[in-house]
Amino acid sequence: MPPPVTAVLDASSRWLPSRLAEVEELLRDSIRDYGELLGADAGATLAAGGKRLRPMLVLLCAGQDGDAATVRAAAATELIHMATLVHDDVLDDAPLRRGAPTVVATAGRDRAIATGDLLLSRAFALLADAGDSHAAALLAEASVALARGELAQRQDAFDTTISEQRYLLRCRLKTAKLFACACQLGRDEPPLRDFGTEIGLAFQLLDDVLDVAGPPERTGKARGTDLLDGTVTLPLIEAIAVEPAIAEVDLRALGPAAAEALCDRIAATGALEKVRARALEMVAAAKRRLEQDGLEPEQGNLLRLVADGVVQRYS
Amino acid sequence: MPPPVTAVLDASSRWLPSRLAEVEELLRDSIRDYGELLGADAGATLAAGGKRLRPMLVLLCAGQDGDAATVRAAAATELIHMATLVHDDVLDDAPLRRGAPTVVATAGRDRAIATGDLLLSRAFALLADAGDSHAAALLAEASVALARGELAQRQDAFDTTISEQRYLLRCRLKTAKLFACACQLGRDEPPLRDFGTEIGLAFQLLDDVLDVAGPPERTGKARGTDLLDGTVTLPLIEAIAVEPAIAEVDLRALGPAAAEALCDRIAATGALEKVRARALEMVAAAKRRLEQDGLEPEQGNLLRLVADGVVQRYS
Repeated sequence: MPPPVTAVLDASSRWLPSRLAEVEELLRDSIRDYGELLGADAGATLAAGGKRLRPMLVLLCAGQDGDAATVRAAAATELIHMATLVHDDVLDDAPLRRGAPTVVATAGRDRAIATGDLLLSRAFALLADAGDSHAAALLAEASVALARGELAQRQDAFDTTISEQRYLLRCRLKTAKLFACACQLGRDEPPLRDFGTEIGLAFQLLDDVLDVAGPPERTGKARGTDLLDGTVTLPLIEAIAVEPAIAEVDLRALGPAAAEALCDRIAATGALEKVRARALEMVAAAKRRLEQDGLEPEQGNLLRLVADGVVQRYS
Repeated sequence: MPPPVTAVLDASSRWLPSRLAEVEELLRDSIRDYGELLGADAGATLAAGGKRLRPMLVLLCAGQDGDAATVRAAAATELIHMATLVHDDVLDDAPLRRGAPTVVATAGRDRAIATGDLLLSRAFALLADAGDSHAAALLAEASVALARGELAQRQDAFDTTISEQRYLLRCRLKTAKLFACACQLGRDEPPLRDFGTEIGLAFQLLDDVLDVAGPPERTGKARGTDLLDGTVTLPLIEAIAVEPAIAEVDLRALGPAAAEALCDRIAATGALEKVRARALEMVAAAKRRLEQDGLEPEQGNLLRLVADGVVQRYS
């Protein structure tokens, strides 16, 4: 299992692993009985694992008092996240995710679109069936943001003139909103929501650094994948600020080798260190939010470990 | 405006047009403020019109006593329907829908997937924000069915051995479930639900007849589009029952001219009349459901007109 989860589990008392196991069971149940295709396609996505960061945020923000509604909300956030991954892989025509073949690669675009729709619908079914419209409303808002973020990213594709503000808006929509939603689903209070937003932003920034820095053995994908997709991220924006000539590169004409060379050129400007420092500041700010809240000591400690885990992915 | 809607509106007293106008306004509001891309993509889908059959079912089943929740539910069903159309067009790589260019044709696959996700999420947001978890649960169930139906159709593609039962299951999932859900959202009673199921099935059967019968000037698409996609429908299944050699045709090898020729061959077996008769029986059965229910006279009359409208599409 990836580092953040392991560290958090090691540090937690027994309620957390047992509740996470309930989430896994509910996830499995949520895709059961929808035919062999979904069993294969969504099952593979589910089994490929991932860090279950979002469910963990729900559980940790709810704390030991969390109940069945907490477990449902945790599973629903992961279903939304999975749906997004499956659809994103269609958009990117991605062969691999977490080192395993994607649904679009094994089952084709058609089944991947339908599988994503099904996962999305199941997430809302899970909450609505239980009568939890507050949770469904929070999740729908996050799901709207995810799709808006995806649309914005497509709109900005190949445009090396986009601003840092625009990039950060996309990160909020595409990543931070669901992190914030996960925290709110655990306990709907502004400091926890802001904690989620900030570690979500940091998570995305560091992800974008990894795309440039690699190495592929660790990230499970080639360096410069974002560049090849035309996705302009903060490392490129920062690099252009230092060396404006980089903006002249035609991303549409880029091949894998040229993308790697562009990664080196971005790295040489010091952009990666800058973005990383920015992400670390965000994580520090996120942790400060936890001081303002009346959390149980264990809860605060574990949430800080999750925040650290976001950074450890990078180091 | 297409026939069924016009006939129903002409026959109704003033509450129905005024409530339908509220639905239109809510639909426009639901896609406003999500950026220019969605404005263009979803706006085009919205403006392309369509019969608004599902919202009309919600409003008619609720009757004159319907309120703001009814209007919301009506808009939500149409958003789900629109999301499905946008994603289906990606799956089929369809150039036209209702004679107008599809989102995938004008904006590309990427934006079409994201647009569909956004419409789906907005539908749930609309209901959940208003605290209506019963409606959200009904709609989530229908949305799950739609995606399952799509998956099943992909699974069955190019298989000329599939049974009528399997075909009818797909129709239930892909079409009838959302019709039934629309009726339930208006008033959650078994006879109305069954009315929705039956006219939904009839609608799909007749749609599949139209694909074989054309003419393209009326349907807005070439004859045999389903055959080219490998979608085996009841006209083909009935034709094979009469003339088993038809099952030998390799649908994967079919071009547009051969698809039209296969349409002629299917029509020559008398399959279209059989399927049409089947659909008419379903519509008659649907209308009988209305006798069992304590509906206002106007409500019953208008629902019967909707049922007739499903058939008039064909004649």
